[in-house]
Amino acid sequence: MKASAYILFSVMKVAIQGERGSFSHQAALKLLPRAQVLACARSSQVFDALDSGQAGAAVIPVENTLAGPVGEHLDLLLERDVFIQRELRLRIEHNLIAAPGVKLKDLRRGMSHPVALDQCRKFFEKHKTIAAVPFYDTAGSVKHVIAENLRDAAGIAAIQAAEEYGGTVLLKNLEDDRQNVTRFFLILKKRKTLPAADKTSLVFSLKNVAGALFRALSVFALRDLDLSKIESRPVRGRPWEYRFFVDVLRGDDEAMRNALRHLEEVAGTVKVLGVYPRAK
Amino acid sequence: MKASAYILFSVMKVAIQGERGSFSHQAALKLLPRAQVLACARSSQVFDALDSGQAGAAVIPVENTLAGPVGEHLDLLLERDVFIQRELRLRIEHNLIAAPGVKLKDLRRGMSHPVALDQCRKFFEKHKTIAAVPFYDTAGSVKHVIAENLRDAAGIAAIQAAEEYGGTVLLKNLEDDRQNVTRFFLILKKRKTLPAADKTSLVFSLKNVAGALFRALSVFALRDLDLSKIESRPVRGRPWEYRFFVDVLRGDDEAMRNALRHLEEVAGTVKVLGVYPRAK
Repeated sequence: MKASAYILFSVMKVAIQGERGSFSHQAALKLLPRAQVLACARSSQVFDALDSGQAGAAVIPVENTLAGPVGEHLDLLLERDVFIQRELRLRIEHNLIAAPGVKLKDLRRGMSHPVALDQCRKFFEKHKTIAAVPFYDTAGSVKHVIAENLRDAAGIAAIQAAEEYGGTVLLKNLEDDRQNVTRFFLILKKRKTLPAADKTSLVFSLKNVAGALFRALSVFALRDLDLSKIESRPVRGRPWEYRFFVDVLRGDDEAMRNALRHLEEVAGTVKVLGVYPRAK
Repeated sequence: MKASAYILFSVMKVAIQGERGSFSHQAALKLLPRAQVLACARSSQVFDALDSGQAGAAVIPVENTLAGPVGEHLDLLLERDVFIQRELRLRIEHNLIAAPGVKLKDLRRGMSHPVALDQCRKFFEKHKTIAAVPFYDTAGSVKHVIAENLRDAAGIAAIQAAEEYGGTVLLKNLEDDRQNVTRFFLILKKRKTLPAADKTSLVFSLKNVAGALFRALSVFALRDLDLSKIESRPVRGRPWEYRFFVDVLRGDDEAMRNALRHLEEVAGTVKVLGVYPRAK
């Protein structure tokens, strides 16, 4: 029994969005070191892979301490039938990665996703002969410079990208701000709550009446349930209406169940997205 | 006096982020038809232009009904000394724009910003021989296909881009969802409130204690002041702490002034970003 369980686990596929070598790839390996990564071009395909059983798990970024929430992933957590099992906080470290043999002094272009370029402003101020060139993806920029064997360009991406595509790391820690952390969720198709789960993510919609949000939050405040985060998202097809994604620092206990029942009285729809242990 | 005021107005510059021909360009012309557009590569440069007097106004997108908030612009409204004078809602209509003479049947690539590509999925499903190619900017994709005189590619962008770069509109309304609206702010350096101003945008930070948001929202709920939106944003350098951007459907009257005083008692810092007439 043990051996077959091990074999099952060792070949599990974990779906991520974006190229191999990305920060999501790095997060997936931290959460599931033995899993095989399934790289999907689009976020919806990550959820499709989970739904069809092609992947046994998925790892998705949901918020960054500088850039804010990843709205598309919050929307998909609401729409799809999945459950959050764990969260992870990953420090975002940008690396300058070039084709083998290329030297720092050869570089005229630093390519990456505009958000990453924006987080490495001091590097470009210091190296004035290197132009910041926007690219659609961080790891994709490394894949590109190495596939094309560019001699005057480097990509800016996770260290994972150098390993993945056989690039040379010319410089580490290009990021201006060390307080650059991305929060990831490990999601499964079925609800499987870990014993230490002490945090709940949920989403609710509100009727568009005065004081509606205040009443919704009262169900937590009146029970001393602390919120660690609230995020509003637009409702598709109903401009200027919003849903609220909330994290509560509480697992599945009586106070939380009462709060959820109470919330259903005052909110439109309520969905629990996951109950999981808080990240350190 | 009147003539000189007119001359002053007619040459006013309005700063936007991104290439000429963008949706921001279109929004700026709706808000200030006679102004001259100053295109800035980065959002921070838009605010710099306002601060230095190089531009007399700026027009920035702050939220989209499908994609959600433009977090960077909310952050800049907090950091910089500016004031919102008007809001505008602009329907986002995507157009397929190519170099003169290029026909729809010649196309093998449709280039645009990934968000725009994502909003035109039905078009790409219908035209399977045209690949969706990510580009850093919507209007920039049109500028590129025309500057390079590409015969197999088109950009996907605002109609303004065709006019700006001399492109041919091959197809209109590529967007899947007609409920695709972006909200823009017209911002000035000095507070100049219009007479009909009946909406207030403000931002506050919270001490990280249980029930803090609930208490902050009570200052509005207890006075029957209706919120049309609340948005949380991460605080830079303090991971997992947030600021809240709130829109209140009320101008500068006694109830609102009392609410703001009350908010200052319960919140960390409070800043009024603007008082302006609501968009229809």
